[in-house]
Amino acid sequence: MRILVINGPNLNLLGKREPEKYGTLSLWDIENQLKKKFESVKFEFYQSNVEGEIVNFLQKAMDGMTDGIILNAGGYTHTSVAIRDAVAALKVPVIEVHLTNPHAREEFRHMSLMTGVCKGVIAGFGVLSYELAVRALTEKSA
Amino acid sequence: MRILVINGPNLNLLGKREPEKYGTLSLWDIENQLKKKFESVKFEFYQSNVEGEIVNFLQKAMDGMTDGIILNAGGYTHTSVAIRDAVAALKVPVIEVHLTNPHAREEFRHMSLMTGVCKGVIAGFGVLSYELAVRALTEKSA
Amino acid sequence: MRILVINGPNLNLLGKREPEKYGTLSLWDIENQLKKKFESVKFEFYQSNVEGEIVNFLQKAMDGMTDGIILNAGGYTHTSVAIRDAVAALKVPVIEVHLTNPHAREEFRHMSLMTGVCKGVIAGFGVLSYELAVRALTEKSA
Amino acid sequence: MRILVINGPNLNLLGKREPEKYGTLSLWDIENQLKKKFESVKFEFYQSNVEGEIVNFLQKAMDGMTDGIILNAGGYTHTSVAIRDAVAALKVPVIEVHLTNPHAREEFRHMSLMTGVCKGVIAGFGVLSYELAVRALTEKSA
Amino acid sequence: MRILVINGPNLNLLGKREPEKYGTLSLWDIENQLKKKFESVKFEFYQSNVEGEIVNFLQKAMDGMTDGIILNAGGYTHTSVAIRDAVAALKVPVIEVHLTNPHAREEFRHMSLMTGVCKGVIAGFGVLSYELAVRALTEKSA
Amino acid sequence: MRILVINGPNLNLLGKREPEKYGTLSLWDIENQLKKKFESVKFEFYQSNVEGEIVNFLQKAMDGMTDGIILNAGGYTHTSVAIRDAVAALKVPVIEVHLTNPHAREEFRHMSLMTGVCKGVIAGFGVLSYELAVRALTEKSA
Amino acid sequence: MRILVINGPNLNLLGKREPEKYGTLSLWDIENQLKKKFESVKFEFYQSNVEGEIVNFLQKAMDGMTDGIILNAGGYTHTSVAIRDAVAALKVPVIEVHLTNPHAREEFRHMSLMTGVCKGVIAGFGVLSYELAVRALTEKSA
Amino acid sequence: MRILVINGPNLNLLGKREPEKYGTLSLWDIENQLKKKFESVKFEFYQSNVEGEIVNFLQKAMDGMTDGIILNAGGYTHTSVAIRDAVAALKVPVIEVHLTNPHAREEFRHMSLMTGVCKGVIAGFGVLSYELAVRALTEKSA
Amino acid sequence: MRILVINGPNLNLLGKREPEKYGTLSLWDIENQLKKKFESVKFEFYQSNVEGEIVNFLQKAMDGMTDGIILNAGGYTHTSVAIRDAVAALKVPVIEVHLTNPHAREEFRHMSLMTGVCKGVIAGFGVLSYELAVRALTEKSA
Amino acid sequence: MRILVINGPNLNLLGKREPEKYGTLSLWDIENQLKKKFESVKFEFYQSNVEGEIVNFLQKAMDGMTDGIILNAGGYTHTSVAIRDAVAALKVPVIEVHLTNPHAREEFRHMSLMTGVCKGVIAGFGVLSYELAVRALTEKSA
Amino acid sequence: MRILVINGPNLNLLGKREPEKYGTLSLWDIENQLKKKFESVKFEFYQSNVEGEIVNFLQKAMDGMTDGIILNAGGYTHTSVAIRDAVAALKVPVIEVHLTNPHAREEFRHMSLMTGVCKGVIAGFGVLSYELAVRALTEKSA
Amino acid sequence: MRILVINGPNLNLLGKREPEKYGTLSLWDIENQLKKKFESVKFEFYQSNVEGEIVNFLQKAMDGMTDGIILNAGGYTHTSVAIRDAVAALKVPVIEVHLTNPHAREEFRHMSLMTGVCKGVIAGFGVLSYELAVRALTEKSA
Repeated sequence: MRILVINGPNLNLLGKREPEKYGTLSLWDIENQLKKKFESVKFEFYQSNVEGEIVNFLQKAMDGMTDGIILNAGGYTHTSVAIRDAVAALKVPVIEVHLTNPHAREEFRHMSLMTGVCKGVIAGFGVLSYELAVRALTEKSA
Repeated sequence: MRILVINGPNLNLLGKREPEKYGTLSLWDIENQLKKKFESVKFEFYQSNVEGEIVNFLQKAMDGMTDGIILNAGGYTHTSVAIRDAVAALKVPVIEVHLTNPHAREEFRHMSLMTGVCKGVIAGFGVLSYELAVRALTEKSA
Repeated sequence: MRILVINGPNLNLLGKREPEKYGTLSLWDIENQLKKKFESVKFEFYQSNVEGEIVNFLQKAMDGMTDGIILNAGGYTHTSVAIRDAVAALKVPVIEVHLTNPHAREEFRHMSLMTGVCKGVIAGFGVLSYELAVRALTEKSA
Repeated sequence: MRILVINGPNLNLLGKREPEKYGTLSLWDIENQLKKKFESVKFEFYQSNVEGEIVNFLQKAMDGMTDGIILNAGGYTHTSVAIRDAVAALKVPVIEVHLTNPHAREEFRHMSLMTGVCKGVIAGFGVLSYELAVRALTEKSA
Repeated sequence: MRILVINGPNLNLLGKREPEKYGTLSLWDIENQLKKKFESVKFEFYQSNVEGEIVNFLQKAMDGMTDGIILNAGGYTHTSVAIRDAVAALKVPVIEVHLTNPHAREEFRHMSLMTGVCKGVIAGFGVLSYELAVRALTEKSA
Repeated sequence: MRILVINGPNLNLLGKREPEKYGTLSLWDIENQLKKKFESVKFEFYQSNVEGEIVNFLQKAMDGMTDGIILNAGGYTHTSVAIRDAVAALKVPVIEVHLTNPHAREEFRHMSLMTGVCKGVIAGFGVLSYELAVRALTEKSA
Repeated sequence: MRILVINGPNLNLLGKREPEKYGTLSLWDIENQLKKKFESVKFEFYQSNVEGEIVNFLQKAMDGMTDGIILNAGGYTHTSVAIRDAVAALKVPVIEVHLTNPHAREEFRHMSLMTGVCKGVIAGFGVLSYELAVRALTEKSA
Repeated sequence: MRILVINGPNLNLLGKREPEKYGTLSLWDIENQLKKKFESVKFEFYQSNVEGEIVNFLQKAMDGMTDGIILNAGGYTHTSVAIRDAVAALKVPVIEVHLTNPHAREEFRHMSLMTGVCKGVIAGFGVLSYELAVRALTEKSA
Repeated sequence: MRILVINGPNLNLLGKREPEKYGTLSLWDIENQLKKKFESVKFEFYQSNVEGEIVNFLQKAMDGMTDGIILNAGGYTHTSVAIRDAVAALKVPVIEVHLTNPHAREEFRHMSLMTGVCKGVIAGFGVLSYELAVRALTEKSA
Repeated sequence: MRILVINGPNLNLLGKREPEKYGTLSLWDIENQLKKKFESVKFEFYQSNVEGEIVNFLQKAMDGMTDGIILNAGGYTHTSVAIRDAVAALKVPVIEVHLTNPHAREEFRHMSLMTGVCKGVIAGFGVLSYELAVRALTEKSA
Repeated sequence: MRILVINGPNLNLLGKREPEKYGTLSLWDIENQLKKKFESVKFEFYQSNVEGEIVNFLQKAMDGMTDGIILNAGGYTHTSVAIRDAVAALKVPVIEVHLTNPHAREEFRHMSLMTGVCKGVIAGFGVLSYELAVRALTEKSA
Repeated sequence: MRILVINGPNLNLLGKREPEKYGTLSLWDIENQLKKKFESVKFEFYQSNVEGEIVNFLQKAMDGMTDGIILNAGGYTHTSVAIRDAVAALKVPVIEVHLTNPHAREEFRHMSLMTGVCKGVIAGFGVLSYELAVRALTEKSA
């Protein structure tokens, strides 16, 4: 199974930005952990601060290059109709993840343009959110 | 580890109500599956259609009878300040779960009074939502 | 034909509460009148002030115990997603009735969570609202 | 007893427009059915697509020409302060009827300017809505 | 004089939940204090987490069993039309009390469905709120 | 103990304006009653129709001239950020009082800019509201 | 000087509808009074319940047939963009009049689509509103 | 007949501020014109930029010193609950006047707190607004 | 091909009203131009200021008298549910046109009740809007 | 004449994404069709998923490189103040086009930041929308 | 150059109120600092807690007594149409200043009635805000 | 001291776009002026029309490459959560600047996502806004 893990703006700061809040793991560390834990899965990690490049990357997934997508759109979660449209055009399942719980933060983070076109959402578990999303793509309920 | 799984109104209909949408598993089946899959966890399942009885049950968890709670408050998710207050009074982590993605349904289901006081939210994966929630309580990110 | 007549909070006060406004008939009197007027119908009356018990009762109707439901959800009309969900899970037709016209009262009574999942609504005719609802379930337009 | 039945815009299309939704009966058929079913009642039917003509017709009812009015204001239900004012000026009871349930349709159909000045509302029962409205004007609760 | 003191959801946790915020007195302690301080008043205390049972209890007060009611509806303050209707049906004065100041908390606690049908409101004084409410029922302005 | 009682616009009309609603006591009478009833308290009464003068007076309370303040800001309750800021700058407790229940009046009286920065609120008990506020400042819960 | 006085829906009921509220004078009486009081003015009165006919009539005023217009658009005041556009297309001054004060009535009467395109508004003085409007068109401030 | 003419903030600038818009007459000129035109009326003019002083002045009118009031509350029209309350306490009729049409200006000027408690409103006629208001107080419809 | 061109209120003023803004062509001129330019199309022009008459005319199109409709509903664009319903009942394609761009005008012109039930919208090109609409009905993308 | 055709995010998927809805033509096909149909026009096509690159491209049009622009901003239509500002800075006419009718889709697509600064809008005609836009730039009304 | 520095309610508390937040400098200190730093400028400082007196003072600036105004309207920033109108009547430039950043505080402080009629705004720099405002009035961009 | 000056979309047009409004200076000119005026400061200028590239650039500032940032986010001021998050992650002070006063422009420019995470805001002074921002970073209040 192949899974794309797409991360939006400022997530490249992971491990450096407010480690007491977001943990000390970098995106790179997360990638390695996932690879070690889910050996049968082929991961591809992507991060960009540019809204349109995330759209570009999502479009590539149309050509059969993946079986599922884990999307943490960061700040674009709340503002990007373009990313939403790119997700909606996909046939493979997309899981929305967040490190923290957006509803416990500012009002403008309560609305997600992604949720309506994603298969499901997992939020609030830090790095574990990614692992649970992998399972949501790879496991069947027993 | 002990985990309480609390289900709100109409979730006792699981398996009978719109099986093409919610699956054919009953709450009872889910309980058995979880027990089989997570043998080291001691589960207690509870379901009630009565808002106040869910409050009652949550309060019992204050007395050290559990290490974590999985809460699918059903229709009360969007209307119950009382359940929210009971959750907020707890010290153990509470995970909000939903079988379906509430943001893909009616407008009045987009707002959750629970999210702000829960550790995290997992929605949209059917019965698998419960399994992921168990992992969110029992696993550490690798 | 079997019809369930379900009444929500404070409707047990009928005949006692503000009789100049709601009339002097009790729920019991209404039941007797309906039985006398519609002899071929088998009525079952139910009243509860507890939201979840109304959910419980509605669920029983799933098991083929009735051919139609008349629902006056009282104050829960405007607040209960749980009752709405229970109604939506039913196959038999449900008629929403009100003794008075909610739109002529406070703003928070203008919105009904029931209307969207009921077959129709009859409001403003006092006890006659119930009789008309029985006809809505039993008659065909000539 | 004399009853005016007033129908607003596009209701003259009844039977022709989306018959699978609104039925195959024309307004003329409804009139005949009501006359046959309620022989002791003297009906007068009126239909107009013009807001002001409906106001004109309602005003005539001030001069004692009727004992009750059944009003299906169609699209003007949601926009006409003028018809509302004409209804409010009447002494005879006015019943608001709708073939379908407006709350199950677009958002702008959820608000009715009529409801606040009518005796009651009956909605969602197709042609039967008219028959129930006749009873609401002619019957007493047993 | 007889006074009912009705407490809503989670108030049975008083003394246990966040004592630094709500104090260390239990409801039971408050009851004893009031009885000691106002010896000529006959108190009856009631607490329930179930919305409908609070409606049930309020209805009993219709039968002349009390001269005044002190109501802390807890989380139902902001959501229960059913309790509001039960209060509105009462002839005896009802005083709304809160331990803390709801306007200094979350937005959804700023609106009280109770205030419009209660004689007055006392909020923010901890346990003293109850004592002041007793005086509001028993004293005349000098 | 020293208590300032500050009254806002139109409260100097007390006893003259709509006595059937606000009672026949003037502010002067209230002052005398409070002094007689709470002999150990040293009261200072102040009334002004001018928003800024109430700010001026509140500021004087910064210099240790009082131990507590009872504030009935009248119409400024709903509009004055300036008075709110002056209250917020104080160290002594401020109690918000109202003769009537603002939530039973016009919509624009439902929002109080004062409540968020006051210790508590007492509303709806006429002149007794002031007496209860004195107790809220001077008594401890038994 | 020539003045058109245009009256909207239900104003033909003047004198008949709720005379205790709107007075006993008919539109006809008002016309006669104005003619008697302002002998040098040539009045033309027009009334219609039909929105579009009022538009028609206003358009005629484009052809130089009048020096000013007094417009009481009745219920169309709050809903008619069409009448607003017709008024905006005129070169002669238009005065908006109302017998009663719309702001003391229902919320939906607080917004006037006319006010923005009229020279001024006079409301609340009964029939005198018309006389003042005539003066507003014919007098200069001394 | 005695009439008070009360003018709010910035109206003392009349004649100096934007004369092309508000005309070249000062308040003083208006006073003289009114006195000359309405010789049988005894006018008293008052202007203040201070909200509370306008309240003070309005209260004096309670003591029978006038038969009617013309009120141009300027910027306080949209913000002062205190002036509204003072107007509401008066027995003599109060007429709201404006030189210009507030609805043709910024959104925040569309709402008037005064309108609901005044007998009527006259707006948009410049200085003539005052003359029409005098007639609204002194004339009867013919 | 037969095309109906339906124009709403005040569009009969075209060429006369603000020619610098709407051009100097009358509806009659537009009709002649279209006929000359699109010789193979059979045009029927209709204009009315009366909402209901536009509904009447649209209904005629149900009887196969046209192959497509160009609708400029003028001021009714923003207020008429009745015209919307008539359009929705049609089987032939309806194109919404506007001479100017409504979004560059007042807020209340930003919402169109027509857009949701029309095939497409063309706005802002003056008389050319009509020509483009004819092409939208008659041409296929190459 | 030179025309730039600028397409926003996901429009590069045209022909591949939901062909039953958007047709089977690619952007490339559209370009070729336009070139063939309008031989005298010199087209330049541009597509980008990146908001800022569209701003970059629009800015180039400031240097006289085009006589008109056709803009389909895709998802940025509803969110990009930056593109709006770039459009507003241009002297050449810009036409907003959409393949489908945004008002028949989700609520968040009803608001267009582009419309206010574009000459006109054409929506709902699929690829034909582009052809009509070319005519809107090149033709004069006959 | 002459500059007026006008300070609104509670700013006279500067240095005393929450010094850790607002600094230890009094208004008097600020005045002295400005005078020392900008020797060529003639400053006049004014502070009042009374809305109308600030209006009074601003009006004096109409008579040529100043070349620019620095306005910190404090709590009146968000509520005073009267001060806004006085500012709008001025010909000299007015700079809005704030010690702290109002957007980082309560919601009701996010809206400023002043900003729309001031030349510019400087907020968030403590006492330095005043110095920057002096430069904004006295310097030209290099 | 090192200061980054970051400019968002369309600011590269400065000097070319509407020079009568924004002045004739280019960004390049501003940079030169600042360097000449503040010789002891080391400036780095950056401009991009791409939201994500501004995020990229802001992130570089995390690595100690600057002592303060001046940010004019242009159109992204009102829409970019991503830039806001990047600013919030910084330790160095960030000053929000605008050439014009956004509150005197369209409604959608009144809300700034930047303000809440910036040290302060300076708006409305044209190029001088930048100079004042430099002082806000480099000067201490005297």
